[in-house]
Amino acid sequence: MSASTFVDEKRLAQRLAAMARIGATEKGGVNRQALSKEDAAAQRQLVQWGEALGLKPSVDAIGNLFLRLEGTDASAPPVLSGSHLDSQPTGGKFDGVFGVLAAFEAVEAIVASGVKPRASIDVVAWMNEEGSRFAPGMMGSAVFAGARELDAVLAVVDKHGVSVKDALRDVRETLRDVPERALGERVSAYVEAHIEQGPHLENEGLTIGVVTGIQGKRTFAVRVEGEAAHAGTSTRAERKDALLAAIAMVQALADALHDAEDIVKFTIGRFDVKPSAPSVVASSVDFSIDLRHPDSNVLQALGDKIQPICEAHAGVCAVRVTELSKAMSLDFPEPMRALIRDAASGLDLRHRDILSTAGHDARYLHYVCPSAMIFVPSHLGLTHCETEYSSSSDLTAGARLLADVLSKLAA
Amino acid sequence: MSASTFVDEKRLAQRLAAMARIGATEKGGVNRQALSKEDAAAQRQLVQWGEALGLKPSVDAIGNLFLRLEGTDASAPPVLSGSHLDSQPTGGKFDGVFGVLAAFEAVEAIVASGVKPRASIDVVAWMNEEGSRFAPGMMGSAVFAGARELDAVLAVVDKHGVSVKDALRDVRETLRDVPERALGERVSAYVEAHIEQGPHLENEGLTIGVVTGIQGKRTFAVRVEGEAAHAGTSTRAERKDALLAAIAMVQALADALHDAEDIVKFTIGRFDVKPSAPSVVASSVDFSIDLRHPDSNVLQALGDKIQPICEAHAGVCAVRVTELSKAMSLDFPEPMRALIRDAASGLDLRHRDILSTAGHDARYLHYVCPSAMIFVPSHLGLTHCETEYSSSSDLTAGARLLADVLSKLAA
Repeated sequence: MSASTFVDEKRLAQRLAAMARIGATEKGGVNRQALSKEDAAAQRQLVQWGEALGLKPSVDAIGNLFLRLEGTDASAPPVLSGSHLDSQPTGGKFDGVFGVLAAFEAVEAIVASGVKPRASIDVVAWMNEEGSRFAPGMMGSAVFAGARELDAVLAVVDKHGVSVKDALRDVRETLRDVPERALGERVSAYVEAHIEQGPHLENEGLTIGVVTGIQGKRTFAVRVEGEAAHAGTSTRAERKDALLAAIAMVQALADALHDAEDIVKFTIGRFDVKPSAPSVVASSVDFSIDLRHPDSNVLQALGDKIQPICEAHAGVCAVRVTELSKAMSLDFPEPMRALIRDAASGLDLRHRDILSTAGHDARYLHYVCPSAMIFVPSHLGLTHCETEYSSSSDLTAGARLLADVLSKLAA
Repeated sequence: MSASTFVDEKRLAQRLAAMARIGATEKGGVNRQALSKEDAAAQRQLVQWGEALGLKPSVDAIGNLFLRLEGTDASAPPVLSGSHLDSQPTGGKFDGVFGVLAAFEAVEAIVASGVKPRASIDVVAWMNEEGSRFAPGMMGSAVFAGARELDAVLAVVDKHGVSVKDALRDVRETLRDVPERALGERVSAYVEAHIEQGPHLENEGLTIGVVTGIQGKRTFAVRVEGEAAHAGTSTRAERKDALLAAIAMVQALADALHDAEDIVKFTIGRFDVKPSAPSVVASSVDFSIDLRHPDSNVLQALGDKIQPICEAHAGVCAVRVTELSKAMSLDFPEPMRALIRDAASGLDLRHRDILSTAGHDARYLHYVCPSAMIFVPSHLGLTHCETEYSSSSDLTAGARLLADVLSKLAA
């Protein structure tokens, strides 16, 4: 019998419920921010479950937690599967933790199947995916993949001035018995299960999304400088109104980035005005731009329009556009997608290919090994909120699929 | 000889310099906010100078300070002249204090001329014109004129939670010997001298502006409500982006209120976005509108466009427009202006009629007695800043004109 047969819906649901109690909020969500006491408690719980199953825990220098099911061939690089245990401050019960517990359940099912995998399988909980306490997120996977420097990430501080380094030390203290593991060991493959965070699978009555890739993202900071002036005495000709210049830029950007197909994601989330007094003409505006598109060429072309458009609408003000980050869109390798597609068909799970419009740790793993993602439906697409919900049967279907996929990858 | 002959440039300059030392800033400006220790010290200084000249001080319940030169007819309502001693946090040496010291110098000149006025003349320092510590400003003149309720104004608190009432008590303590005066006694006329706060007189080589009136002002608060959403996963069709809706409103307002003559003053000084995160679609925006125009009919018509324009551009968001204040444009009575014009001509002072685009205490006095204002040039029109500057000869010219005008009004 295939490993998926041994996936236990009740056990998975109980573990998800146990994790949801760690950092539970009054409104039914979860507040389990990276490297908090709650995060540490969730990690201890995972290690404890792993010990009962004979999995060997380890932690690396950036705080990624691994639980290993030993394979028969010690020289084969391990297969990785997991996601993250940290949540947004008012997050839900499934984002992240489902991917970790689905991998755990898949490993438990593989053990129960009696088939020893050739390669080891590591269940992984990446450190700080959400980035709500320490920004930006995906710290653990980025450092694991060599995309960010360990020292630079350890030096990041939260709003209280606590560094990642200090917070990690506290968490590590509670995991004293867990041995350290070297950073970024070789890996043969990575598969991450996650809730969709969008309504499409649910709307189409599907159980599984075979993730084709992750939408790219470019972010910018725009600073517009004008001159403060008296709202009553200064004429329009005399003014250097930073707010009106910034407004004209944003309006022109919204027009230029408008696509009839509604694929472009263009967001201005911050727009800070100085001195911010009702009767004083604005001397400066700082605004953010978050631009995403699944096609890297389009993302490149659209992002390149931003600076010229801002400059064209600056009028008498000065403008400075700074690109903060640039992550091109990526496609997971077709063989990995085919493996998931075939396994889903083998389990009679209704599925389709789907693009991930949000970022995930798999973004970084993609650059070090063949990677893939499996989505399960999110009710109404609600996410990063306390009402986030996925049905137990859909979650179990995801874990079953993962069990078969990991079995094949580790065979 | 007319009273103006006895105006002493050196004495006026010395008093201005003495006041500028009270709350002097490093960069050559003044920080003498309403009801601060510095404001109290300035008031004590004024009372002391008044005593030396035989003027009788009094304070009313809202903290307006009066120094009376007694007239020969005790039954005649007094003539008032003055302005305010409080400044912006980084204010200049002339805004407000010049009007008080010009009135004082005019009264000293009238005394020196040997002509006893029939009506009493009160030099007045209105409480809190600037409104930077306790908002909104013009508190003393508004309560004096009955435009605002005493109790409501006493209850206003600064950002540290200190109420006008408590701050007034502390200032009053330092003026223990000064008797109390009833609120809002009858007045026969009011004349306020002030720096122009604009560049026009200087640009045209004129010494005196005969103020025709004060530009009207309507202020609004606009609240736009949308819905927070994930910048990566939510499509444009799914979003209720409060920022893009607010941007469209502001752009449409700027277009609709654009006049080729550049008379309309349209200012958005505040624009607060929630939750203000780069990757979260804005759930709400609160922005301010400050609209001014010298023609009350135009001001009314333009202001009435605001709500429909905001509603027309709300899209899928909700919008609420609240009018916070509405002060129609006002014209000072022609006989008062003629009096000033004739007196200026009599002194060979180059002058012209000029509109006040900023608000002043005279706005409120206008509703209780014939009122007028005299402007002197501001270098480069710089105001509400530490580099504010008017020449001693221009300031003296203003005081001389005021001396002759007050003589006539009190005769």
